[in-house]
Amino acid sequence: MPKASPSIFGPIAGIAPSHEFASRLELWGSGVHRQTQAGISARQGLGAESIVLSGGYEDDKDWGAVIIYTGRGGRSAETNQQVADQTLTGANLELVRNEQEGLPLRVTRKVTTNHSSFYRYAGLYRVVSHWAAPGKSGHRVWRFRLELLPETVALDEETEAPSGQAELFAPPGLADSAAAEPASAYGPAPRRVSTTLRIVRDTAVTRRVKVLHEHCCQVCGIQLRGAAGPYAEAAHIRPLGAPHHGPDSLENVLCLCPNHHVLFDLGSFGVADDGQLLGISGQLRQHKKHPINPVFLAYQRVHFYKPNAEARGE
Amino acid sequence: MPKASPSIFGPIAGIAPSHEFASRLELWGSGVHRQTQAGISARQGLGAESIVLSGGYEDDKDWGAVIIYTGRGGRSAETNQQVADQTLTGANLELVRNEQEGLPLRVTRKVTTNHSSFYRYAGLYRVVSHWAAPGKSGHRVWRFRLELLPETVALDEETEAPSGQAELFAPPGLADSAAAEPASAYGPAPRRVSTTLRIVRDTAVTRRVKVLHEHCCQVCGIQLRGAAGPYAEAAHIRPLGAPHHGPDSLENVLCLCPNHHVLFDLGSFGVADDGQLLGISGQLRQHKKHPINPVFLAYQRVHFYKPNAEARGE
Repeated sequence: MPKASPSIFGPIAGIAPSHEFASRLELWGSGVHRQTQAGISARQGLGAESIVLSGGYEDDKDWGAVIIYTGRGGRSAETNQQVADQTLTGANLELVRNEQEGLPLRVTRKVTTNHSSFYRYAGLYRVVSHWAAPGKSGHRVWRFRLELLPETVALDEETEAPSGQAELFAPPGLADSAAAEPASAYGPAPRRVSTTLRIVRDTAVTRRVKVLHEHCCQVCGIQLRGAAGPYAEAAHIRPLGAPHHGPDSLENVLCLCPNHHVLFDLGSFGVADDGQLLGISGQLRQHKKHPINPVFLAYQRVHFYKPNAEARGE
Repeated sequence: MPKASPSIFGPIAGIAPSHEFASRLELWGSGVHRQTQAGISARQGLGAESIVLSGGYEDDKDWGAVIIYTGRGGRSAETNQQVADQTLTGANLELVRNEQEGLPLRVTRKVTTNHSSFYRYAGLYRVVSHWAAPGKSGHRVWRFRLELLPETVALDEETEAPSGQAELFAPPGLADSAAAEPASAYGPAPRRVSTTLRIVRDTAVTRRVKVLHEHCCQVCGIQLRGAAGPYAEAAHIRPLGAPHHGPDSLENVLCLCPNHHVLFDLGSFGVADDGQLLGISGQLRQHKKHPINPVFLAYQRVHFYKPNAEARGE
């Protein structure tokens, strides 16, 4: 699998939502959309980075924060009508990759007035789901549900959260390493990283962890398969955001299947410094290029892991 | 497990966010908070329905849409100070149940002015996570991250979405049952049910399906365990919301583990009308009190299931 350059996804420096561009050329020059004509800008095997909604697809729906976007292909070059079924290949498959990997998509709208037209950047969306459906023509099209990422919420939280050191509960007898946690050495997590439950945000770090483990769960080894390739989730050991303020760094992330991600977050299991699993049997599968900082493992054990969870259940 | 009355969770008819109450007695009379003194109103084995933030806990943090809430217990009746560790039992354990089951929590704030105080209903929150931490006293407290549910987004979408029949792709050869789908017979899904990815919303229907299957996955039979009991997810076969407009009814829901929920939504497997699994081996585990409408299974097969997903992967 080719390596993704982190810079192709996400916001473009200096371009805020509502930024306007006079032309496709200007849009291209800004780096927002790296195609001068095509509506989707995607890289094979990496995902889609940007789309332009120009009103050209009869099956698109635009409700503002929610967009139903039609895939590419099957249209006549002469009439622009849908004349054949679309396939889940090429740029369409890359949009599925965005869904599976949590990659953000830049969205720009073409705005047409009586006298002219221009382009307005709308912001970052996530690909929530995809499905096949009959277009107005009767031919099959692939459709994608896009939802605006709640950036403002994340920004508000970072602004209002205390800037001091995150709390750490260190009962007597706990290794000193946990108390001496060098959280500041990693710097704060990027502002855009929010903590919405089970919405897996993409970062260069989470992508790298999943690739290193070939999308296999570090607990059970399972590799789930979707249309755009294997699926796994990146779990932050010490959570991002207030009040935990864990870093978005390789040393603070595990590659897990959704089942073990849920159980880890619920505190049903923990991981000892040597990788032994606690609460369930087995050993964490490790990769030599993916060192895990035991300080973060200790944080999860102390704050989240409940050794007797089974006994406390119903 | 006792059965939950659906009415104890969620909104109270006639009470919108920002509604004000002169006293705890008035708040109690409205049905918002069924305790006259306690800050948490919970039912053993069912979950917590409501909390009142009165500023009494030194470790609470209130950032508006995000609240870090401190659990109950360990305080001196005389001094109101934290004098002992809190345990994950009683009302604290019920808050964990809200997290595991996706149960909404009503939140009301005490507002104190120079001359008086009153109570203002804030709306519905979800319990995102819980962890142990040292309080300001040094004793362990259990903390809960609460996030305001994005009701306005769901309402906007329902308002703007087309009200007509959802689309259905019926290629030649597909059983007629799919085309004759009686979606309207189930009525529209409740307005509050949104479609945010992997945020599992609670409804009476989803609770019932999980209880019938004892939280075991209908595909693989696994039962995950959290501190507040078993964990499973309710997957709508035909999705809720625009443009699919599937109903929130027992016949349209499966009880799945997170792994099979992800794979089902990605279209990596489908279910034949007779319960045979497609794309993976095996048979859907069924319960006689949980009939599944084959029309919805057909909808998922046609729109989401990709028989050759494996071959299309990387």
